[in-house]
Parts: sequence; structure tokens; C-alpha cells
Amino acid sequence: MNPKTVSINAPQNTYAIIGTGALGGFYGAKLQKAGLDIHFLLHSDYKQVINHGLIIESKDGDFTLPRIHAYQEVAKMPKCDVVVVALKTTQNHLLPQMLPSVVKDDGVVLVLQNGLGIEAEVAGIIGNDKVIGGLCFLCSNKIAPGHIRHLDYGQITLGEYTSNYSPVGITQRMKKIAHDFETAGITIEFAEDLLLARWQKLVWNIPYNGLSVILNATTAELMADANTRQLVEQLMEEVVAGAKSAGRVILQSFVQLMLEYTVNMKPYRTSMKIDYDENRPLEVEAIFGNPLRTAQANGVDLPQIDCLYRQLKFLDAQH
Amino acid sequence: MNPKTVSINAPQNTYAIIGTGALGGFYGAKLQKAGLDIHFLLHSDYKQVINHGLIIESKDGDFTLPRIHAYQEVAKMPKCDVVVVALKTTQNHLLPQMLPSVVKDDGVVLVLQNGLGIEAEVAGIIGNDKVIGGLCFLCSNKIAPGHIRHLDYGQITLGEYTSNYSPVGITQRMKKIAHDFETAGITIEFAEDLLLARWQKLVWNIPYNGLSVILNATTAELMADANTRQLVEQLMEEVVAGAKSAGRVILQSFVQLMLEYTVNMKPYRTSMKIDYDENRPLEVEAIFGNPLRTAQANGVDLPQIDCLYRQLKFLDAQH
Repeated sequence: MNPKTVSINAPQNTYAIIGTGALGGFYGAKLQKAGLDIHFLLHSDYKQVINHGLIIESKDGDFTLPRIHAYQEVAKMPKCDVVVVALKTTQNHLLPQMLPSVVKDDGVVLVLQNGLGIEAEVAGIIGNDKVIGGLCFLCSNKIAPGHIRHLDYGQITLGEYTSNYSPVGITQRMKKIAHDFETAGITIEFAEDLLLARWQKLVWNIPYNGLSVILNATTAELMADANTRQLVEQLMEEVVAGAKSAGRVILQSFVQLMLEYTVNMKPYRTSMKIDYDENRPLEVEAIFGNPLRTAQANGVDLPQIDCLYRQLKFLDAQH
Repeated sequence: MNPKTVSINAPQNTYAIIGTGALGGFYGAKLQKAGLDIHFLLHSDYKQVINHGLIIESKDGDFTLPRIHAYQEVAKMPKCDVVVVALKTTQNHLLPQMLPSVVKDDGVVLVLQNGLGIEAEVAGIIGNDKVIGGLCFLCSNKIAPGHIRHLDYGQITLGEYTSNYSPVGITQRMKKIAHDFETAGITIEFAEDLLLARWQKLVWNIPYNGLSVILNATTAELMADANTRQLVEQLMEEVVAGAKSAGRVILQSFVQLMLEYTVNMKPYRTSMKIDYDENRPLEVEAIFGNPLRTAQANGVDLPQIDCLYRQLKFLDAQH
């Protein structure tokens, strides 16, 4: 299942990057550097990038794009084959006005966001047949306007969205997007079942993002203390129960893998902790609220995730 | 049931105060001021109190006791009729060496501490027939060595301890202690069922002490936010479930009363929050660990209290 071996004869995809921050800016810049036609939507960094270009510091090599197709308004962007949603989910109320004009008739929206149920929201705007989900394993920060620092990882898992998240396997358009990203040096994996992949990612995101903010702690501190380590495991088990309520089986071996993986990581400040420390809104609804409500609708309570959800909502509102 | 109307013919009780801090210092000083014979155990404040006396600032009137019976070692204290345990529960590992020598053969230990199950621990040291529990509703701080500021409240609820907390109603010795405290201006209520009273107090202590530390919040802030208010109510319901597992019924009207009472209070920094802010050990085991383990032993999980317990243990260990 190596995308590079897929034969690609169609013309190259064009890309719109909705949100040129730590994530969208990084992937978009890598794609442009690989020769693809990329259109970037910017907000506060627009003037800086027009004047000084887009700067990427990366463990894989620093580079600057002196000139990019930069836009302040979606209305001025061309219709693209692949529209990458790279905003924080806290800005998704903007999507109904942003997406329709920028997606080609046979185009697709690639949702590179955290949490659960976002593809269904996007499908409600653009159509069930036009959405692919992407789960990013990326450690990257915007350190100044138009200046992104890529620290580690970068891999994306792609999965097709269909109505009700019924799995449809690996499609040609997934393979084509994968080819583009692989050309740009980004590792791609395929998920045959997007919903399973989303729940699996929550196994990590829910305990570590939540507790790192609430307890002002790194992943290493949470794993070194017997009480929080136990709480992490219990929260992971609640995610497994939530997935099960949605008909998805997460194996115990996967939970163990996440625990071991985290123990062996460098001490890590989670994305939600970075958002919190920088006074940005927290993605509480996407990462905690949607899974909770999904499980509740399926008749399953997740009381410890609910506890974290309410604590985070409080902290988010105090900001 | 007004203790003042009870006829008391026996000689007056003598009292030992084990722990002359914000609580023990306040009650002990009030009793001495009322003419009772009080013996105070001190630790770090001993020299200060010997030289300058015990100073009480109180909303009910300031006073100083220039001279008290002060001790640095229990071994030098006389045997007393009533031995008041006024340490934080985090110091209860000291009790096995402290208590036996200071309790008269027909004396009693009055446990003025927070949380659940402490009387049983003390009974294990001194005998099942020698323990009375007291639940203090007191807002008092030690603001300097030998200097206590009493801010509000002061009432104590007394209940007899018996093996397995089976209720025995109101005894003569309870009435005699109540008489002493009432003489000193302290309001006393009687609990016919000490265990029920302990669980009832946890209805307030668990949500507000826990969340105030974890979220750095006052009671008013916790009640003003819809998410934490809901979490407070859920935690209270878990306390009700814990009590039920121990055969004690807490009425919904009591839960509602605690919520309304808190909404109408001045914004309040809980005792655990004060301990946390002043870098003192937190009473996590007495207030959270013991109720959790009791419920678990009775086959009932309290997942949200467990979540707070583990978060608090982490924060306590980081200090």
C-alpha cells in the first residue's frame, strides 16, 4: 500500500489551503516546493507573507517561498481540486461561507483537523461525496507571522468520508492526493475506515490534551505519576467504549501501544496546551464534546471524559 | 435538643488540643476563655506562644490568652477527659504515638477533622468506645505563629462513633461536651448518625474543594459557569450514590440546599484551596480516597470523584 507505486496519469491537483498557520502553512509550502500549484488563504499574516514570503524552518531542511499565491478572501481564490481545511475547529463556523466557492465541481475538501464528526459538518456544506478526512501527526508551531517551525513528525492518515462514515476503502482520489504529498516528502497512510481512525486518534488526544491543560503538565509528567497514568488509561478505556458504541473496535494492543509510545516520547507539550498557553480558544467541542455526544446518543456514558470536558470548558471560558 | 438545657452535675471536662492551628487554636482558646482547663500541643509556634500568648482575632470579638498550658511533647501532657484531634488528616500517621498517653481511662477522643473513616482509624488506636466525631463548619486561618483569625461560622456537629458506624443516638458524654462548647459560645448540633453526617458533609466538600484546587476557582466562579455547575451537581450525585452504598440516604432536597447555599455564599476559597495556595499537603485521602474506597468495597464506582482524586494526587505530589 505504498502510494508512490500507484500510476498517476491525470493532470496534477491544484490545492487551496484554508488557514495558513502551523499546519496548513507547513503542508502547503512543502507541496508548492515540490512543484504543485497552491493557493493560500491568509488572515493576519497576509502583508508579512506578501513582502517577505513564507518561511519554513524544519528538521528536514529550512526553506523560504519568496512568492506564494496569497489571498485575504476566499472569493478571490480560484476553484481548486483539493481544498485543505487547516483552520482550528474553533473557527469552523466560518466554513459555510468559505468552502462552496473554492471547490471544483469534481473537487474534494480535505479536512486536516482534530476531533470527531468534522467531516460530517463539512459534508453538510459541500456534499457527502466531496469530503476526505486527514489525521495529521505533526509537531509544528507558528513562531512569527509567516514563519513556521516544524519540530517533528508530519505523517498524515487519509480516509474517505461517506454518509454515516460507512467504510469504502481506498479510492483513486485518495491515491492521487497521497501521491502529491509523498512527492513533497510527506508520509501518507491510508485508513480504510475513517471513523475508526478518528476514534483511534482520540485514544491519545483525549487524555493527554485534556490533562496537560487541566494539570499544567507534560506527557512525561503525566506518565511518571502513578495516579495520572492510571487516569490516562481509564480515559483511554472510555474512548474504546465510545468507539464501540459507534460500532468500531479498538484493540487493547492499540491502547498499550499508545501508552508505550508516549512513555518513550520526549516530554511533549500537547497542541491543546500550546493553544491554552498562547491564549487561543481550545478545541474542546471537536475533541471532547463530539465524542461524548456521539456515545450518549448511542446510550453510553463516558463520565471521566465528561469531567474533563466540563473542566476544559470552564478553563476555556476563563481565558 | 438544646444542649444548654441539659443538667450537668459532673465535674468539668479537661481538654487536650492536639494541634493548635487555625481550628484547634480557635476552639481551645474559646474554651479556655470560658473557664475550662485546656492543654495545648504546639509544634513550630511553641516559643512564640510561650512569650506572647495566643492571639485570636474573631468576628465575635478579639482576645488574647497571655498564658496557656503549652506543650511540645504529648508525653508531658496530663491525661485529659476530652482529647481534641485538630491536626490536618495528612498528619494522622502521628496519632498512634500521640493519643494513648493523653486520654483518661474514661476519656474520649473528639475527632475534629475532615473526610471519611477517620474515627475508625482513631478507634483502632484507642478503642471503639472512646471516639466522638465532630464536623466543623469554621472559616478560620492562622495568619502568623500563635495568631489566628476567625472569619466566619464556627458551628460543630457532634456524633458518637461506634464499631461500623452503627448509629447510637445522643449520649450523655456528647451532651457534656456540647455544654462546654456552648458555654464558650460555640453552636453545637447533634448527629444521631455520624456516618450520615460525614457523607452529607462530603456533598459539599468533594466538588468544591476538588474543583477549586484543580481549576484555580472560587465557589462563585464554579457556580456561575454552566459546565462546572453541572459537574458540581454530578459530583454531588456520586456522593449520594457512595452514601447509598454504605446504607445512608441523602435526600435530593439536601443536595439542592447545598447548591442554593453555595450560590448565596460570598465567593469562598475552600480549605483545600488555601492549603494548596500555601503549599501545604492536601487532605486528598480523607476527603476523596476514603469515600472512593468505601464505595468500591461496596461495589459502586464513582468515576468522576475518581477523576478528581487522581488529579488532586498529581497536584499534591508536584508541590
